[in-house]
Amino acid sequence: MLIDHLSIVGVGLIGGSLARALRKAKLVNRVTGCNRNEETLKKAIELDVIDDYSLDIKEAVSGADVVVIGTPLSTTEKLFPQIVASLKEGAVITDVGSAKGSVVDVARVVMGELISQFVPGHPIAGTEQSGVEASFAELFINHRVILTPLEETNTQALKLITDMWQAVGADVIDLDVEHHDAVLAATSHLPHMLAYALVDCLAGMQEREEIFKYAAGGFADFTRIASSSPEMWHDICFSNRNALLNTLDKFTDHINQIKKAIENSDSEQLLKIFKRAKQARDKFTDSRNQADVSPE
Amino acid sequence: MLIDHLSIVGVGLIGGSLARALRKAKLVNRVTGCNRNEETLKKAIELDVIDDYSLDIKEAVSGADVVVIGTPLSTTEKLFPQIVASLKEGAVITDVGSAKGSVVDVARVVMGELISQFVPGHPIAGTEQSGVEASFAELFINHRVILTPLEETNTQALKLITDMWQAVGADVIDLDVEHHDAVLAATSHLPHMLAYALVDCLAGMQEREEIFKYAAGGFADFTRIASSSPEMWHDICFSNRNALLNTLDKFTDHINQIKKAIENSDSEQLLKIFKRAKQARDKFTDSRNQADVSPE
Repeated sequence: MLIDHLSIVGVGLIGGSLARALRKAKLVNRVTGCNRNEETLKKAIELDVIDDYSLDIKEAVSGADVVVIGTPLSTTEKLFPQIVASLKEGAVITDVGSAKGSVVDVARVVMGELISQFVPGHPIAGTEQSGVEASFAELFINHRVILTPLEETNTQALKLITDMWQAVGADVIDLDVEHHDAVLAATSHLPHMLAYALVDCLAGMQEREEIFKYAAGGFADFTRIASSSPEMWHDICFSNRNALLNTLDKFTDHINQIKKAIENSDSEQLLKIFKRAKQARDKFTDSRNQADVSPE
Repeated sequence: MLIDHLSIVGVGLIGGSLARALRKAKLVNRVTGCNRNEETLKKAIELDVIDDYSLDIKEAVSGADVVVIGTPLSTTEKLFPQIVASLKEGAVITDVGSAKGSVVDVARVVMGELISQFVPGHPIAGTEQSGVEASFAELFINHRVILTPLEETNTQALKLITDMWQAVGADVIDLDVEHHDAVLAATSHLPHMLAYALVDCLAGMQEREEIFKYAAGGFADFTRIASSSPEMWHDICFSNRNALLNTLDKFTDHINQIKKAIENSDSEQLLKIFKRAKQARDKFTDSRNQADVSPE
C-alpha cells in the first residue's frame, strides 16, 4: 500500500480525480475529504471518491499520512497554519496550485521545520470543468506533474509524492519554483488572460450578436479556456503576479509590433513575424507528436 | 446540371474542395483549373479535382459559366482585369476571400458594368492546412458561407452562387460588406493575430525550451491557428486593415484592463471581467450546441 491514510483538502476536479485514481489502483486504504461545502462532500461519498469526511480541517488531516491540498490558491495559503498544527509526525503535505512562488513564501513563514515535509506540486491537467462531479480516475494519465522541491524538502517526502503521481499515470518533472512560475505564466496564465480579454472584448462590441453567431471552430478552440473558473484564475493572477505581468508586457510588445507593421504597410516585417511564429508552432506540433503525449 | 463549365482560379484547399464536392454531387460538367504553379495543376488532375487546366488565366476563364477565385486576396485583386476581359456573356464571378471591403473596392473600379455579375463570398471553413492536397469534398458541410452581395449584384447571379454553396452542404448567409469585415476582424482575424503574437513572444523568451516542452493541451488548442499560412494572413491583414486595427485597439484596451486590475490588486474588477467573459463564452457554447453546427 503506497499510502495508508490520504486526506484531500478541497475535493474538486483535481483532488477528486487523484482520490479516484489511487482508490482504483488500490494504492490507498482510506481517503478522508475536507471541504467548506458539505454538499460537495456528500456528493463525493455518493460518487465513491472518498471514504469519509470532516468539515473541520484539523480533524480531517490529523490522522493522514499524506495531505493533498486541492483548494484554490488563496485558500491554500490560509489553511497552512491549521494543517501544520494538526499533522501527525512524518506526514507529507503537497498542493496542486498553478503558481508556486507565493505558496512557498507563505509555507516558509508558517510551517517552520515542517517545511521539509512540504512538496509543492502542480499537475498540468484539467479541463475548463471544475468540481468533484467532473473528476475521473484517468485525468492524469500521460499528463505532466511538475514538483518544485525546495532546498529544505525531505528526500523521502519528495519520493512519496513522486511515486503517488507516477502511480496515477503522470509524467513527473522537477523544476525550481521561479522557473516553474515563469514557464507557466507563458504557456498557461497568459493564454487564459488573452482568452478572457478576447471574449470580454467581443461581448462588448456592437456587432456581438453576429460575432458569436458567425464564429467558427477556430474561435471555439481559441476561447474554450475563457470558460474556466473565474475564482481560480483570479487567485492564479495574484499568486503569480510578477511573472504574469512580466509576460503580459512582453506579449503586448509583440502585438504592438504586428499593429505597427499593419499601420506602416510593412509587408516584410509582418511576414517575418508570421513566418517565425508558424515555424515555432510547427516545431511544437512535431515534438508533441514525437512525444506522443495525449492532448489535455 | 447546376453549372456546365466551372473555372477555379487558384486551386488550393478551398477551390479544390469546392470542385471535389460539386463533381461528387454531379452538379458540374467540366472543371477547369488555373494556377501560377503547374505542379499544383498536375496534382489536381491526378487527384481528380479538375478535368483540365490552363496556365493562361484568360484561356482558363473564357468558356466558364462560373469563375471561382480561390487565390490569396492580394492576387485576387490583381487578376480582376484579366478575368473580366475574357468572360463570356452571363458568366458569374465569385471569390472566397476572408475580407471583402478591399476586394469590392477594386472590383468596382475594374469591372465596370460586369460588377453586377460579381458575387463576393467567404466560406467560413478551412483548416490550418493549405493546398489542393488537403482538399476534400466534405469541407463545407454544416459550415457557413457568407455572401456580401452589392446593390449592383444581379439577382440570378446571387441565386446561382447561393445554390452552389448550398449544394455542397453550406449554410449560406448574406451580410453587407462592412458588417462582414467587422465581424470577421473580431472572430477570426484578431484571434489569428493573438496566436501569432503569442507564439512569437514565447519563442523569443529565455525559457523557450521548457515553455514548449511543458505546454499542455490548452496551449495547443490556443495556438493551433498560428500554423496557418503566413502569406494568406499577410494579405488578410492588409485587406481588412481598418477593421482589424480597430479591433486590435479594442482588444489592447481589454488586456490593459486586466493588467491594471492585477497591478492594482483590484480583485473585484478582475473577477468582474473573468465572470463576464465566462458568461459570454458559456452562452456561445450553449448556442453552438443548440445549433448543432459541427466544429471546424
